[in-house]
Amino acid sequence: MSVTTPQGFRAAGVTAGLKASGDSDVALVVNDGPDHHAAAVFTSNRIEAAPVTWSRQVVSDGRADAVILNSGGANALTGAQGFADTHRTAEATADAIGVSAGDVVVCSTGLIGELLPMDRLLSGVTRSVEALDAQGGTAAATAIMTTDTHPKQATVARSGWSVGGMAKGAGMLAPALATMLVVITTDAVVDPTDLEPALHAATEITFDRIDSDGCQSTNDTVLVLASGASGITVDRAELTDALTDCCADLARQLIGDAEGAHHDISIEVRSALSTTEALEVGRAIARNNLFKCAVFGNDPNWGRVLAAVGTTYASFDPAELDVWMNGVQVCRSGGVGEDRAGVDLSGREVQVVVALHAGEAAATIWTNDLTHEYVHENSAYST
Amino acid sequence: MSVTTPQGFRAAGVTAGLKASGDSDVALVVNDGPDHHAAAVFTSNRIEAAPVTWSRQVVSDGRADAVILNSGGANALTGAQGFADTHRTAEATADAIGVSAGDVVVCSTGLIGELLPMDRLLSGVTRSVEALDAQGGTAAATAIMTTDTHPKQATVARSGWSVGGMAKGAGMLAPALATMLVVITTDAVVDPTDLEPALHAATEITFDRIDSDGCQSTNDTVLVLASGASGITVDRAELTDALTDCCADLARQLIGDAEGAHHDISIEVRSALSTTEALEVGRAIARNNLFKCAVFGNDPNWGRVLAAVGTTYASFDPAELDVWMNGVQVCRSGGVGEDRAGVDLSGREVQVVVALHAGEAAATIWTNDLTHEYVHENSAYST
Repeated sequence: MSVTTPQGFRAAGVTAGLKASGDSDVALVVNDGPDHHAAAVFTSNRIEAAPVTWSRQVVSDGRADAVILNSGGANALTGAQGFADTHRTAEATADAIGVSAGDVVVCSTGLIGELLPMDRLLSGVTRSVEALDAQGGTAAATAIMTTDTHPKQATVARSGWSVGGMAKGAGMLAPALATMLVVITTDAVVDPTDLEPALHAATEITFDRIDSDGCQSTNDTVLVLASGASGITVDRAELTDALTDCCADLARQLIGDAEGAHHDISIEVRSALSTTEALEVGRAIARNNLFKCAVFGNDPNWGRVLAAVGTTYASFDPAELDVWMNGVQVCRSGGVGEDRAGVDLSGREVQVVVALHAGEAAATIWTNDLTHEYVHENSAYST
Repeated sequence: MSVTTPQGFRAAGVTAGLKASGDSDVALVVNDGPDHHAAAVFTSNRIEAAPVTWSRQVVSDGRADAVILNSGGANALTGAQGFADTHRTAEATADAIGVSAGDVVVCSTGLIGELLPMDRLLSGVTRSVEALDAQGGTAAATAIMTTDTHPKQATVARSGWSVGGMAKGAGMLAPALATMLVVITTDAVVDPTDLEPALHAATEITFDRIDSDGCQSTNDTVLVLASGASGITVDRAELTDALTDCCADLARQLIGDAEGAHHDISIEVRSALSTTEALEVGRAIARNNLFKCAVFGNDPNWGRVLAAVGTTYASFDPAELDVWMNGVQVCRSGGVGEDRAGVDLSGREVQVVVALHAGEAAATIWTNDLTHEYVHENSAYST
């Protein structure tokens, strides 16, 4: 059930003392081959952390031998010193496992704007290499947690090969990735030119469609490593399908563990002119604080749904809009529908459906409610 | 200190029973002339309430004799019946004061998606006409409150003439107006063609630059009525200046009373390539929930400021960005600056300054922190 489920991978998670809590905070995943194919997608935030700048370069040739990850500090907005620290981390990892530093991906997560305590981190690197184990997936998944309440892992089993994944992320979830670090492994034999398009296709309809709080991180990374150790060759379609299943499982876990959330909300936009317009509308609703507060209060305030829709450029006639909440059509043709008192929002899952009557496209965005616990966690994070 | 400070106006505020609280909920402002010039700006939300649709038409000829306002129901997303109800409200008001219904502006605020109890509202209209008084400004300002904790009024005195205003709004504050209803009066003698451009110029740098929670209402209206009763003629520049002073005073009061806020935050973006880019950056910061939660926690988390900046299209080099919080330069040239521990956020006012080093333009956006009380008020509003 982890990144070490596919053959050809070892992993570890150790405590370097980066977190005040004393929990584990350095993770390492090594691809022992025979293949060392890699691809990644990164945050689209224009202010990217040093490890993102580094790792873009590492994977640009399609090869990576390992990924070293730390929680307890994002190493973002840390200038030249921050980049030098990332470089040293990659070198220390590479030296210890006998590969090139240019084939070691680095990921960091935690507070922005502070330098990492390099003595502790480098000692953690050393110990993580010593701890590498073919059963080390869960230890690695645990060491990348920040405000996550539990490690997040997924496995997709296919005939003779598999995909494994781990993820961290519990806030700052927004499209074009969220503060999430994701490492996916597979032992399939793949054409290296298939790996990046397959990963993009998978993330586009999974991680890119969760939007917990509209905030976009400086550090987001989704990395896939392919070892070929199963000896089973798969084509791009099979690979894309398995990666999508794995990403969907992890994305769902991220929403389910978003900071302080009481509800997981799916927002399905139907009969849009295009998928782009459906996504625009879905995101506008997902980012509307008044709507999110209403769901927290178990209040089927559909007016706030449409007030959000009205701020978009999507094609629709206000007099044709329909809204359902948990199956009850609370708005019909832009006016009052069934009695909102009939909507039961007491469960964890909330389904909002909006029909635009402008075309044939549809899309679903996943988000969370806005709660006291969200405010608490995010006002207390760095203090 | 109110809409009845300028000569030529009477106002009233009465209780029609629209609010469960039993507080006053119908307000009326009448312009007794001799001039009856009017101009307004409305929400840019594409889903506009029935009274907005009605009132756009009323002011399109530059004349209005009165404005009738109700709290306790927004009359938005109420279809043809909602529009008919607005029409009836205008007719009842017009009949009672002896003007044309086509010269009566209607404003509503409250819950979206429910029809108004017309019997109560029409009886409130009757009583508001009976209660009209040249000292009635404060009663009117009180009757338009929803979650406001106090009535909001302003007066700008000039030599022989004045401007008076009242506003409601305590949440859903966003650019292109917020859920705000604002009525401004003046007894200046103005060229009717000056009124609309002067109002636009005033709102563009006041109401359009407050952004409490990024949510945009279906009902926003800012109306100005000019009676000419002072006999003093003013030119467009003098008028614009006085309207701007009045709008700035009211906008500041709206931010100061935003739902559940503990801090009023000014976000000044300097050295931007254009005012548009400065505003884009300011709004991105103002709408970042993580930043807003950090301010609530008195936490100078400047990384969240720049993570928001990084999501914009504005021109900047990440390695040149500077950030000050309450006067302390916490970020210098895109890296760590002064010790963040030196930033004192314990006061109500928080000043954030971001320098983009891309040009000569600047703009300031006002917002609030995201607090437990905001979540509470907005999860309990309709229940």
